[in-house]
Amino acid sequence: METIVLKFGGTSVGSTDRISAVANLIHAASSEAFPVVVVSAMSGETNRLIDLAQSFGAEPNKREFDALISTGEKVSASLVAIALNHLGLKAKSLSAAQVGMKTTAQFSKAKILEMDNEIIFQTIKDGYIPIVTGFQGITDTGDITTMGRGGSDTTAVAIAASIKSKRCDIYTDVDGIYTTDPRIAPDAKKLDSICMEEMLELSGQGAKVIQIRAVEFANKYKVLVRVLSSFKPGSGTLILHEENGMEDAVITGIASQTDQTKVTLHGVADTPGIASGILSPISDAGIDVDVIVQNVSVSNKTDFTFTVATHDRAEVETVLKEKMHGILYDELIIEEAIGKVSLVGVGMRSHAGIASTAFNALADAGINIQMISTSEIKITIVIAETQLEEAVRILHKAFNLGD
Amino acid sequence: METIVLKFGGTSVGSTDRISAVANLIHAASSEAFPVVVVSAMSGETNRLIDLAQSFGAEPNKREFDALISTGEKVSASLVAIALNHLGLKAKSLSAAQVGMKTTAQFSKAKILEMDNEIIFQTIKDGYIPIVTGFQGITDTGDITTMGRGGSDTTAVAIAASIKSKRCDIYTDVDGIYTTDPRIAPDAKKLDSICMEEMLELSGQGAKVIQIRAVEFANKYKVLVRVLSSFKPGSGTLILHEENGMEDAVITGIASQTDQTKVTLHGVADTPGIASGILSPISDAGIDVDVIVQNVSVSNKTDFTFTVATHDRAEVETVLKEKMHGILYDELIIEEAIGKVSLVGVGMRSHAGIASTAFNALADAGINIQMISTSEIKITIVIAETQLEEAVRILHKAFNLGD
Repeated sequence: METIVLKFGGTSVGSTDRISAVANLIHAASSEAFPVVVVSAMSGETNRLIDLAQSFGAEPNKREFDALISTGEKVSASLVAIALNHLGLKAKSLSAAQVGMKTTAQFSKAKILEMDNEIIFQTIKDGYIPIVTGFQGITDTGDITTMGRGGSDTTAVAIAASIKSKRCDIYTDVDGIYTTDPRIAPDAKKLDSICMEEMLELSGQGAKVIQIRAVEFANKYKVLVRVLSSFKPGSGTLILHEENGMEDAVITGIASQTDQTKVTLHGVADTPGIASGILSPISDAGIDVDVIVQNVSVSNKTDFTFTVATHDRAEVETVLKEKMHGILYDELIIEEAIGKVSLVGVGMRSHAGIASTAFNALADAGINIQMISTSEIKITIVIAETQLEEAVRILHKAFNLGD
Repeated sequence: METIVLKFGGTSVGSTDRISAVANLIHAASSEAFPVVVVSAMSGETNRLIDLAQSFGAEPNKREFDALISTGEKVSASLVAIALNHLGLKAKSLSAAQVGMKTTAQFSKAKILEMDNEIIFQTIKDGYIPIVTGFQGITDTGDITTMGRGGSDTTAVAIAASIKSKRCDIYTDVDGIYTTDPRIAPDAKKLDSICMEEMLELSGQGAKVIQIRAVEFANKYKVLVRVLSSFKPGSGTLILHEENGMEDAVITGIASQTDQTKVTLHGVADTPGIASGILSPISDAGIDVDVIVQNVSVSNKTDFTFTVATHDRAEVETVLKEKMHGILYDELIIEEAIGKVSLVGVGMRSHAGIASTAFNALADAGINIQMISTSEIKITIVIAETQLEEAVRILHKAFNLGD
């Protein structure tokens, strides 16, 4: 039987009225294929639970923290099932433990290892729409884990991959992927489709519509993903595997991100293995590092710079001081007020001059570039956070992305 | 290692401040034996979840309803564990699924079948205080069940029986068992101890301090239970297995209960098997029947009367109309406004005249008796609900139970 995975985020299930609307969307989708649903916690619920946990101290035990906040998705899964019953449809909520969603034991940052699709298939065979709790899993020893904010997207794509669904629809509060954030550049255009690689780069840079790990999963297992709104009708943005019709566009979109911190080890002795010596303990602690830049060395010393999410700053400092062995440096410089802007497009590969167009446009506006990092289809520029929105508007205009 | 089970009800974990107080009580108990904790949902939480479920219709699917409301205990278990961490103690929350608390598949009225105490012993061996979710279990197929209001008491006693704890302390918002409800008779006395059989009768008649199934469990598996307050210090009331020092007291206490409905099948053909013909389908539907009275028959017809909780009334009517085959009767009479008052005492066995003292006292006050049911250590009297409190005060005085 052909299936379609529908994932609903926190605002989509934010109230019992919203949940009724979601039930109608599931009902409508059932005419296309048998629906399998993944839900987030009701918006506000996860924060309420975090506040409860932190009322006993800033750093609650991670196992208990995950067990606690995982209750949010259980509540919404049951409510969605009840709302579907009300429409005359059979549905069953299934927790991560019930579907055997095995993850690593890195609490709050767990990664999916495997899942048992038998339970989902059996539920479908029995005629029930499975409503699976997103964002969470269990370890080999049965402890409950969570996968970090946005993890429900990954749950949805992982299930779609496992049961070979025809598509994974990610319902959210925006109606698709735009050339850039419309709140920053009001003439931003919705894209009808975007290729997976571009999406991967856009998502990683804070497009915020879908979690990066979900896009990676979709990329790896060739899951067709669509991003659309649960609040207003529309076809959303389809995330394509092939680069169909992308030849003309040099730049597809611009992403930006705040809440980033730049960490510089100044005057590192330039010996083999410094990069892994610095980054391995950080990676072991489960902290995601984003842009990494190492300049050429001067008199056998170099500067090693990377960015992390600002909420990881305290842990990064601890790790660098306690776990980084054998790396000598002159000074540790940490700067929180930075922003990142990224130009993304598969067309970039075959077009020279993108970087210089971007740098010139920023220079004309007096915006100083602190770091540059490039990949085949992306150019990331780190600047002062205060100038970020202006930079987005300037670049959006420089590449004629608006309506 | 000697263990002690501590169970905390909804008001005892009703706020993060109360949870901190509970953590201190657990810490204090750990000097007596290794604590194993069972928790209810934070007071108000279960009702909040019920309201959410019922916003889609009055009768939500029972499987989903149970999955939904079972999240309440998961939240408080994790919070208690986090509060214990804050005191420097190691603790682990364990859900019903994690401890393998197997129950029947009667959603909302599930009964414990067996539990796997290995996980609890292993947790203790690892040095962690287990914090187990009360009130819930799982079926053989992994569905989550709940055991009805007050079910956490049963969880606690079942665990105490399984791991052979020295005692099971039921922390609540009252400081022990009284001769009767102090809100009705202000001179009611707290009992330092009560024998298990009396407690069983008192609890069943609505003493409300501890759930009847928990007392039955404790009785069956010889678990020593103590009822005490988490709000103020005190030794509570110990529920004894032996009838120590009970010889003098003829009546130990008086229980009363409202929210009861009387169901009478008038003019039933008096043939063998009517009682089971009427009650079996009700029992099959998981409805608890309380007082049952059948009078002697007149011209081969009799009246068969029983009482149920008023919230079960609609289901009882449905069952009687649809499932009761081969029983003929003239009329079905249902009366909601009834109350029950019960005199309980093991001394009753060896003393004549208890019943007549009680009936005379009620007659003097002009209170009409509708039904009488007696056991070896209990006399239950059904009267109009409006006269219930007066009846309690009259009987409390007639047997000199006050201070």
